Amino acid sequence: MNAETKIEPNVAVKTGTIYGVGLGPGAQDLMSVRADRLVRGARHLAYFRKAGRPGQARRIVEGMLRGDVTEFAMEYPVTTEISLADPRYNACLSEFYAACTQHLGTLARRGEDVVVLCEGDPFFYGSFMHLHARLSGMAAVEIVPGITGMSGAWTASGAPITWGDDVLTVLMATLPEADLARRIADTDALVVMKIGRNLAKLRRAVAAAGREHEAWLVEHAAMAEQRITPLVEAEAVTPYFSILLIHGKGRRP
Amino acid sequence: MNAETKIEPNVAVKTGTIYGVGLGPGAQDLMSVRADRLVRGARHLAYFRKAGRPGQARRIVEGMLRGDVTEFAMEYPVTTEISLADPRYNACLSEFYAACTQHLGTLARRGEDVVVLCEGDPFFYGSFMHLHARLSGMAAVEIVPGITGMSGAWTASGAPITWGDDVLTVLMATLPEADLARRIADTDALVVMKIGRNLAKLRRAVAAAGREHEAWLVEHAAMAEQRITPLVEAEAVTPYFSILLIHGKGRRP
Repeated sequence: MNAETKIEPNVAVKTGTIYGVGLGPGAQDLMSVRADRLVRGARHLAYFRKAGRPGQARRIVEGMLRGDVTEFAMEYPVTTEISLADPRYNACLSEFYAACTQHLGTLARRGEDVVVLCEGDPFFYGSFMHLHARLSGMAAVEIVPGITGMSGAWTASGAPITWGDDVLTVLMATLPEADLARRIADTDALVVMKIGRNLAKLRRAVAAAGREHEAWLVEHAAMAEQRITPLVEAEAVTPYFSILLIHGKGRRP
Repeated sequence: MNAETKIEPNVAVKTGTIYGVGLGPGAQDLMSVRADRLVRGARHLAYFRKAGRPGQARRIVEGMLRGDVTEFAMEYPVTTEISLADPRYNACLSEFYAACTQHLGTLARRGEDVVVLCEGDPFFYGSFMHLHARLSGMAAVEIVPGITGMSGAWTASGAPITWGDDVLTVLMATLPEADLARRIADTDALVVMKIGRNLAKLRRAVAAAGREHEAWLVEHAAMAEQRITPLVEAEAVTPYFSILLIHGKGRRP
């Protein structure tokens, strides 16, 4: 009997660690070496996805997983019928995140490590943070940062996003139109995410700020389908994989 | 004679590629798999550093390089005696970047690939962009995005930087105090870089915005010396490796 198989039944099981692993913008080789190692070694893998869809996070790691991996797909509840302002919206999501946390916490208490796949960077918008907040005290959590989707987008655009003392503002297109317009007028460089159904509103806000000829839409950055379009020529947009950019023009010796 | 060793003396040499490679925030295993592969395979390596210093980019890749690598250290001219507003400041840097570009362009014309090390992400502030702008038409350039220093900082802080619809503003501490104060008051989440000698000014601006109890200083994020301090307790700061954060408090179901 060697050291590895020796079991001490009366010794408490060491609690496992929940890893929130940033996968970067989409290309498999743009995840960090640390993330790559964790994903390839994972016995337990968890990820968010829409019901009935493979999920972008899971798609990124295709072909990297152990044969004996156990997968836990966390499928968002369908909330399209409920307004964001309705308290039921938050209650519904809150229940969902609590149930996911419960599952991960149970695995950790059994001594299992779990790798949670996160698109982009786990602490930059995204869903993992809602588990992170709830896991506190239940299990050790380690975060592996990732290349953000916006870095993928400005790399795809072929031009630096910020120079010198440029101010960069990151906005969600879900904000009210007047807020968007005011902030777009008041920044050097701009990144807008969560565009989806807000494209028409965002386009009006960019025009109101007088910047429609500076703005670019980047879709599927860092992926095979990558596409860059001047905003004035864009007619529709790929939900969830679209980022709007205005490049800064700061000091450049 | 096999296909690989066959040489056609009259065929023009294929021009090399200049790679602008993002190294991430500082830990070696936080560079991307693609960056790791390029760095380990590089025959020609270039990086910026201050005269007489090893340089942070070079420090990150220590132990990863080929035995036969050729290194080109691009040492910033000493500009501490010249004010930022003096045209000689820009002229001095401009000459420096032009000379570096010339060297890299010559290597590429000889058919050599060159890996240029970039801290963080090459298109997010930083120096590589000044070469990139000048290399256009001289050589093929490929950018490998990286995890930004700010991602390293908010990961070190142990808390997400942005939730839901939070607005994120990224500022350089070199901006005028009144601009800093106005923008710090007008954002949900905040990142401030280039703090160095601007700490006292930045602290006054944060206080003027009424947010001194929300602000954290992160030094040497993702490195062994990593340190997180509430701004109100910070007395001095590590130049060039310090980032100030205010975390967003957006919608969290």
